[in-house]
Amino acid sequence: MKNISELIAQHKMGWTLDQKFYKSEEIFTIEVEKIFQDSWIFIGHQSQIPEVGDYFVYTLLAEEVIILRGKDDNIHAFYNVCRHRGSRICLETSGSTKRLRCPYHSWTYNLEGNLIAAKSFPDELEKSDFSLHKCNLEIIAGMIFINFSDNPQSIENLKRDLKEPFSMFGFEDLKIAAHKNYPIDSNWKLAIENYQECYHCAPSHPEYSLSHSLKIENEPEFDKAQAVMLETLEACGLKDISINHDFSRKEIGQEQYAYSRYALFDGYVTGSKNGKPLAPLLGNITDYNQGCSDFNLGPVCYFLAYCDHMVGYIFTPTAQDKCQCDVYWFVKNDAIEGQDYDKDKLMWLWDTTTFADETIIVNNQKGVNSIKYQSGPFTDKENSARSFIQWYLSVIS
Amino acid sequence: MKNISELIAQHKMGWTLDQKFYKSEEIFTIEVEKIFQDSWIFIGHQSQIPEVGDYFVYTLLAEEVIILRGKDDNIHAFYNVCRHRGSRICLETSGSTKRLRCPYHSWTYNLEGNLIAAKSFPDELEKSDFSLHKCNLEIIAGMIFINFSDNPQSIENLKRDLKEPFSMFGFEDLKIAAHKNYPIDSNWKLAIENYQECYHCAPSHPEYSLSHSLKIENEPEFDKAQAVMLETLEACGLKDISINHDFSRKEIGQEQYAYSRYALFDGYVTGSKNGKPLAPLLGNITDYNQGCSDFNLGPVCYFLAYCDHMVGYIFTPTAQDKCQCDVYWFVKNDAIEGQDYDKDKLMWLWDTTTFADETIIVNNQKGVNSIKYQSGPFTDKENSARSFIQWYLSVIS
Amino acid sequence: MKNISELIAQHKMGWTLDQKFYKSEEIFTIEVEKIFQDSWIFIGHQSQIPEVGDYFVYTLLAEEVIILRGKDDNIHAFYNVCRHRGSRICLETSGSTKRLRCPYHSWTYNLEGNLIAAKSFPDELEKSDFSLHKCNLEIIAGMIFINFSDNPQSIENLKRDLKEPFSMFGFEDLKIAAHKNYPIDSNWKLAIENYQECYHCAPSHPEYSLSHSLKIENEPEFDKAQAVMLETLEACGLKDISINHDFSRKEIGQEQYAYSRYALFDGYVTGSKNGKPLAPLLGNITDYNQGCSDFNLGPVCYFLAYCDHMVGYIFTPTAQDKCQCDVYWFVKNDAIEGQDYDKDKLMWLWDTTTFADETIIVNNQKGVNSIKYQSGPFTDKENSARSFIQWYLSVIS
Repeated sequence: MKNISELIAQHKMGWTLDQKFYKSEEIFTIEVEKIFQDSWIFIGHQSQIPEVGDYFVYTLLAEEVIILRGKDDNIHAFYNVCRHRGSRICLETSGSTKRLRCPYHSWTYNLEGNLIAAKSFPDELEKSDFSLHKCNLEIIAGMIFINFSDNPQSIENLKRDLKEPFSMFGFEDLKIAAHKNYPIDSNWKLAIENYQECYHCAPSHPEYSLSHSLKIENEPEFDKAQAVMLETLEACGLKDISINHDFSRKEIGQEQYAYSRYALFDGYVTGSKNGKPLAPLLGNITDYNQGCSDFNLGPVCYFLAYCDHMVGYIFTPTAQDKCQCDVYWFVKNDAIEGQDYDKDKLMWLWDTTTFADETIIVNNQKGVNSIKYQSGPFTDKENSARSFIQWYLSVIS
Repeated sequence: MKNISELIAQHKMGWTLDQKFYKSEEIFTIEVEKIFQDSWIFIGHQSQIPEVGDYFVYTLLAEEVIILRGKDDNIHAFYNVCRHRGSRICLETSGSTKRLRCPYHSWTYNLEGNLIAAKSFPDELEKSDFSLHKCNLEIIAGMIFINFSDNPQSIENLKRDLKEPFSMFGFEDLKIAAHKNYPIDSNWKLAIENYQECYHCAPSHPEYSLSHSLKIENEPEFDKAQAVMLETLEACGLKDISINHDFSRKEIGQEQYAYSRYALFDGYVTGSKNGKPLAPLLGNITDYNQGCSDFNLGPVCYFLAYCDHMVGYIFTPTAQDKCQCDVYWFVKNDAIEGQDYDKDKLMWLWDTTTFADETIIVNNQKGVNSIKYQSGPFTDKENSARSFIQWYLSVIS
Repeated sequence: MKNISELIAQHKMGWTLDQKFYKSEEIFTIEVEKIFQDSWIFIGHQSQIPEVGDYFVYTLLAEEVIILRGKDDNIHAFYNVCRHRGSRICLETSGSTKRLRCPYHSWTYNLEGNLIAAKSFPDELEKSDFSLHKCNLEIIAGMIFINFSDNPQSIENLKRDLKEPFSMFGFEDLKIAAHKNYPIDSNWKLAIENYQECYHCAPSHPEYSLSHSLKIENEPEFDKAQAVMLETLEACGLKDISINHDFSRKEIGQEQYAYSRYALFDGYVTGSKNGKPLAPLLGNITDYNQGCSDFNLGPVCYFLAYCDHMVGYIFTPTAQDKCQCDVYWFVKNDAIEGQDYDKDKLMWLWDTTTFADETIIVNNQKGVNSIKYQSGPFTDKENSARSFIQWYLSVIS
């Protein structure tokens, strides 16, 4: 195989990647190290663990992290690896506990991760040297992010710049109404490329295309909807902002992020089948209106906020040639299922769309595996996918 | 691992291959490139796509080829890879269409493979540079062959020399009455070796051995049957020919082929359970007689033609340690199922035999994997398998 | 990857292994060669094949060995690989036969492994050069051990030193009352480490801990039980012996072994749920008493002998990241199921315990795969596991 720097040097700017980027185990090892072990990844919401001792376990490839509310009421993140012989400590995916006791030899840690009991512990060693390994953690407007790096890039600018939109949708006061995992038989990059562009929406997503503007500017329908969206924004006492620090526009040393707002088509106040509301209004929003907001939070996490619910999409690899999309549906945390919202109706649009995308992405991977696949040109409608590729090449080089 | 040239140098002529040839991924990569990407492979019959726009998709490892009847009524072969982002275009294994439209972003090609529509196609590029990649294609007496090479060897001599027997059995006017895929958990070479010799037929295939002469010359039964076969040949106005350009007798620059004719045992006019006819007579054949013909067409495709039907066997890898045998049963194209032939009876002999071979081959692979497996001697009854091995070593060296 | 000698040099004595030893295919290849192809492995008991022609097939990774009672009434071990084209010869896991006939081309071997028939065998070769490959075999007190090496280490000292305990339990006159295979999704070493220590018994095996002393010396309960055990030993006219030639105490050029005896807790005369007998007394033992004996026979085979039954545990890999524990339950060979013993009751303790261990070991492997796993300290209660690791490193270095 050509070496990676040769492949990168030969890449034609604005064209799709060479096949080897989608098939090489060697390149995947580099991606895991450079991207998945140093990106801030959304893994859940603080509302999942309201009480001291509540925990859940997050898994990415070989890593498992215990996310736990400690005695200090703060949330902690520990690697699920006993310091004795390495066993998993928490075997359940969630629960509540007073301490972390390894099931193998009963080495026991408190909720701050300190080793407090270990029968026959060697005299010459100090228990304080055997605390659980901590994982980098940030709680941003109630959302839990982790980063596996020993020296993680900063996420401060993201926090600072997105404060207002996080507040507008009341991110702190959401809850997860539904979660679904979509396994995809493809390299993870093809899934992100797919998410990054809406050039495929008209041919592939009739359900989505009925209500969403597809970001096609300078079309009368779009301009009209956009005007309505701006009005509704003013009604909430907010300005229209657009932030672009994602992918090739990322600031050095800072995690990437982006934010933009657009309007649904007339007749739609949210991402529902019939255009009608799905759940109680979020945050500071005062009426059911057709505005919605896109968030990019780190390279693999995206959120789409409507006036009454929010949807999150997290793309992670499960192997070189397999990935997954975790979709989360959020509503206001005091909304009651069956009364304030219907789970199936809430999930309809993005379950349908993500399911369709899974097929598309798998068929993209199959073609990319062919000896006759060659780099193709991105169109102007695929600018974000193009930016993703440029960022990707710069990170792994 | 010893390198391949050392392994080849150490090979004892007339003995079986070293274990590494059956287990090495590195050698398999070479085989795919030198054998499967430059052999003419039978993939179907023109009768499968009679009308303009009819197509089917052929798959070999990572490659998919769309075989399609164009507006010019000719058959075309295109790689199933969109020139935009590489997606598969045809997702069904067969069908009929007016154009080839990629399901991802709707890039659309006409039946000649030319890009005719692509929304937002970059201004600076020419659509004519983005036609579908063509695959080498030959229609020989109605049989469709493809070759993945950029510079394929010629198949002209095969066409020229086998014209008469193709015509005798009316290859152009056949149809596929049945097709069955037999997956085999072994390296592909063990499957071909098995097909190449009938030394195993008596112990392993009692059904076959009842009717087929096993090519054991100089035995009275055989000589008698052979005489009858020659008579029946004359009745059709034909000469007995034998052609040997397969494996180690292959002409340089030409695809390999072979042809020979022999007789079934008395009481059998075709490969049926009771020896009685199975379907209407083929081609120029004028009576139900016990002659049958073997064709080798390229290294992995074999046909056995009886007076009333023909059976094709195509051996291809699905991985280093997995392969498949595709068996096709052909009858005259105007024969009507249930009336002129019974599908189960037609398939009986070679379904039974191929199924038995699958077990044999898998157990051969298991033993070959042992540290104690060592090259063993081929007997005189395994001359064709021996020739296959000699050819194989010359191709990969 | 760091090379293996670097990894070994960096190993901290008395601490667990580096992650790479549990994940590397390259290291596994070395382990197979240096450990599994030169260890004596228990594979069954002579009572399984009482009559001439009786056989069973033993499988370890790619190897299959036919264990067969020959015409001379001796037991033979042949690789299950035909000398012609390498096919498996015996396809059943056990049976009785007059000769070994390869199903592929009918090459036929007698019960001594000599080729006696092969149609069309080449004139220039000698059949006597094509006997089946023999595998090293030892029958020790009725137990069948094999070794795949061309130059196996000696097992003579094991035979000599364990003669008396083998005789005490009447190993020659046992039969296998039950056998169960436990697949474990972990590297094989984690399974052996688990078996080597009882530090985990109290937290993980409540059933076992009710009856077994856990070898915790200098505790009053233990000392009392130990005294009873010594008395019962004297009643059989035997001395208490302890032998330590396992792992880091192994003699050069000799297979390893160890033997020790201890007592069950009061109220337990055997490894049963209620402490009561399970089967007729073994060997020279004259009463139901609470003594039991541990045997290590080679690095991967362990036996635990009670007064009325014996349990054997054999740990072998099935892949780099998968292994299995084969558990055998032995009783006196004239004991009758349903009358002299109840199979479910006999199996209860070690089925329960092995099943629990499987979960423990799998969770150990999962944690060991984490980037944050690091070598941890063995306690004094894990001395045998520590010895295993020292031996392991010396063998592969």
